[in-house]
Amino acid sequence: MAKADKINFSCPSGFPEFLPGEKRLEMYLIDTIRQVFERYGFTPIETPAVERLEVLQAKGNQGDNIIYGLQPILPPNRQAEKEQAGESGSEERALKFDQTVPLAAYIARHLNELQFPFARYQIDVVFRGERAKAGRYRQFRQCDIDVVGRNKLSLLYDAQIPAIIAEIFTAINIGDFLIRINNRKVLSGFFESIGLDESKIMPSIRIVDAAEKIGETKVKKALLAEGLSDEQVEQILTFTKIQGSVDEVLAQLNAMLEDKPDAQVLKTGIAELETVITGVRNLGVSDRVFCIDLSIARGLDYYTGTVYETTLVGHEALGSICSGGRYEELVGMFVGDKMPGVGISIGLTRLMSRLIQAGILESFSSTPAQVMVVNMQSDLMPLYLEVSQKLRQAGISTITSFDERSVGKQLQQADKRGIPLCVIIGSEEAAAQKCGLKNMRTGEQIAVNIEQLANEVSKQLA
Amino acid sequence: MAKADKINFSCPSGFPEFLPGEKRLEMYLIDTIRQVFERYGFTPIETPAVERLEVLQAKGNQGDNIIYGLQPILPPNRQAEKEQAGESGSEERALKFDQTVPLAAYIARHLNELQFPFARYQIDVVFRGERAKAGRYRQFRQCDIDVVGRNKLSLLYDAQIPAIIAEIFTAINIGDFLIRINNRKVLSGFFESIGLDESKIMPSIRIVDAAEKIGETKVKKALLAEGLSDEQVEQILTFTKIQGSVDEVLAQLNAMLEDKPDAQVLKTGIAELETVITGVRNLGVSDRVFCIDLSIARGLDYYTGTVYETTLVGHEALGSICSGGRYEELVGMFVGDKMPGVGISIGLTRLMSRLIQAGILESFSSTPAQVMVVNMQSDLMPLYLEVSQKLRQAGISTITSFDERSVGKQLQQADKRGIPLCVIIGSEEAAAQKCGLKNMRTGEQIAVNIEQLANEVSKQLA
Repeated sequence: MAKADKINFSCPSGFPEFLPGEKRLEMYLIDTIRQVFERYGFTPIETPAVERLEVLQAKGNQGDNIIYGLQPILPPNRQAEKEQAGESGSEERALKFDQTVPLAAYIARHLNELQFPFARYQIDVVFRGERAKAGRYRQFRQCDIDVVGRNKLSLLYDAQIPAIIAEIFTAINIGDFLIRINNRKVLSGFFESIGLDESKIMPSIRIVDAAEKIGETKVKKALLAEGLSDEQVEQILTFTKIQGSVDEVLAQLNAMLEDKPDAQVLKTGIAELETVITGVRNLGVSDRVFCIDLSIARGLDYYTGTVYETTLVGHEALGSICSGGRYEELVGMFVGDKMPGVGISIGLTRLMSRLIQAGILESFSSTPAQVMVVNMQSDLMPLYLEVSQKLRQAGISTITSFDERSVGKQLQQADKRGIPLCVIIGSEEAAAQKCGLKNMRTGEQIAVNIEQLANEVSKQLA
Repeated sequence: MAKADKINFSCPSGFPEFLPGEKRLEMYLIDTIRQVFERYGFTPIETPAVERLEVLQAKGNQGDNIIYGLQPILPPNRQAEKEQAGESGSEERALKFDQTVPLAAYIARHLNELQFPFARYQIDVVFRGERAKAGRYRQFRQCDIDVVGRNKLSLLYDAQIPAIIAEIFTAINIGDFLIRINNRKVLSGFFESIGLDESKIMPSIRIVDAAEKIGETKVKKALLAEGLSDEQVEQILTFTKIQGSVDEVLAQLNAMLEDKPDAQVLKTGIAELETVITGVRNLGVSDRVFCIDLSIARGLDYYTGTVYETTLVGHEALGSICSGGRYEELVGMFVGDKMPGVGISIGLTRLMSRLIQAGILESFSSTPAQVMVVNMQSDLMPLYLEVSQKLRQAGISTITSFDERSVGKQLQQADKRGIPLCVIIGSEEAAAQKCGLKNMRTGEQIAVNIEQLANEVSKQLA
């Protein structure tokens, strides 16, 4: 046919797509994450890709990101038409850039139809007009869970989060990981206790949070530039370097508290941290996979209590692969109620592409097919179709080859696609109700009774 | 907290969202459909939501739909900034309105990395600015499969499609269905054989295709208005009313062919139809669930051979719930090669909402949780957490209640959420390593050893 000339059919910049083997890996990761979320009773929701712009901007553009607004494009035969109701500029709409603002809107929209605490997950794509650079996408998939309460929310929900993180990263088997836990009140309470003005607490937290990226010298400089004294800066650096086992860190924090009997916020923060840690342990999470890290804060302003980051041991340069925390003021914004929540997010698209690059994850084969039934003689096609259906009924993913080339070529094709088993039936086998089952990895071929085929295939795939 | 005043947080018109129980039903349907697709060896792909506008418009706007273009909105602190590279108007981008044009682009983008025939599925949302009315959405999910060949594609791929449709609708158990099969060449060949000009064939096919919607009188009128003779109109109406078993219809078609020895296109169409029907039968699809219906054509211009529609028996007013066909000229448009394909699409969002309305499908419970471990005494919380983890390790979705209200209130909550089982442990039970297991449907409560709990729960859930 004629080629549609001059059309640039490449993906728009920042909107890439996966090859089938990568997409299959992504679906495996999504399925695994979803199973863990559901085992903890989280229920799926899906908010539309499109929200009113005023909803998305209720808490600002989330940093300096571009939001993608919608611009209706009329087809040529309707160009003269006035913009119709609901498609006019009076209702500005845009693509969601995260799943937290939409969660707040979802809860406001269905307040009386939901039960609280409301534990939901959403595995969905979001859109951000970030400056295009390697590993940055303008459309990417996030896996979010949040529990939201009305008026109050037990700290034990905070304790469940590390258990969920640990289960996910154990299940997807990408090596040792470390869940780093902190509490914003411990940080702000400490900063307050060494005499920082309230106006300087949030900026200082943000500086400390960036320590891993910018290094100690720059942290010092930035804190001094913020107007802190040399002594305060030293105290902060000493504080964020408190290390050791979970119990050692808690002991040091409690010891510090003895010298600061009036530090109420610090005291509350430490108590919260202790409650959470006790819950994490009662949930059976091994001390080997989590720690208290007083240097983490999460950049976002809305966190108010527990915060989490997760790093891959030996691959710390990848940054946090799963982060989140407790917030008080975010979800209730449309309702006008106090609706505290705690949640985490896994930036799946970015995580997966980086784990592939680092050689930690590998693409799947390009097809889910486990068996190819070879087309040896076209007069036997009815039998090939019947055999294929028997395999499918046993839950085995099967391709029937309709290729008219040689058996050798067809086996090559199967191999290229990563299909592990091939079924070969000629006239003699057909007459004897037998077939050849060729294992593409070992090259071994055995004769199997057709009625035993599904069992034998399952055995070889196991 | 302060309410964000005056913000209209409702969903934009035409972009609705589901409650959790409906979303869980949708995910069950998606999982079921996906399993069938994968059993036939179809591999998942996902193209971005956003494509270059020139790609989307390569075959027109798909009827008179509005396409949603993207309009970058800079955050307030970057308003002065020039539009950055890749975010400028020179690269017009828009949201995909179907999955077929993006499939053509995907194949063009990865031509040398894919193996052909390429069998892919994509279960994804698309965006169309249709006039908002009941049951019409501007964002909706489609479940598409297509097999695409290079240069040629066996008709047995057409035969697999009804087998796949039958498996899906049997699995989701929505009552009797009928897969109606036709071939465009049979229609156009017949029209040609009764002397229609080529220019009148496509318009006439479109008129016949609308027969179920507009009725026979209007079909007649429209065909006459198209310039057909009274005799031609009668012949067409007689032809499209040919009914009976698959074999009877094929016999009538073949008989007709004897009077028209020169009707090459008709002959090819009948031969194709026979090959497909034989394949469908060899795949074990019962004659009860499919028929030949010479009145269906599918409105879209690009179909060239086999076409399919599926109706729910007794609910024909719902229209076709799964449609598709064979096309020659669509997928190769960016590559410039002949790439014949055959595929179907299930408009899942619309189908589900109509099946719920018609009482054929019911929402799921609002949570996947199968068990709630009640918070009877907070000093026993470590045990509650441990018991919950044991259930989760056995694959049972479990919520631990952190509610401080009475056991009665907590049981009410479980009931309201549709959680079938509750675990109740007081001091005595804890000391004896036992628990109460309450079945919320029957009200019955039994005592179970904690180490037997997961088994007993699985038994009661089975």
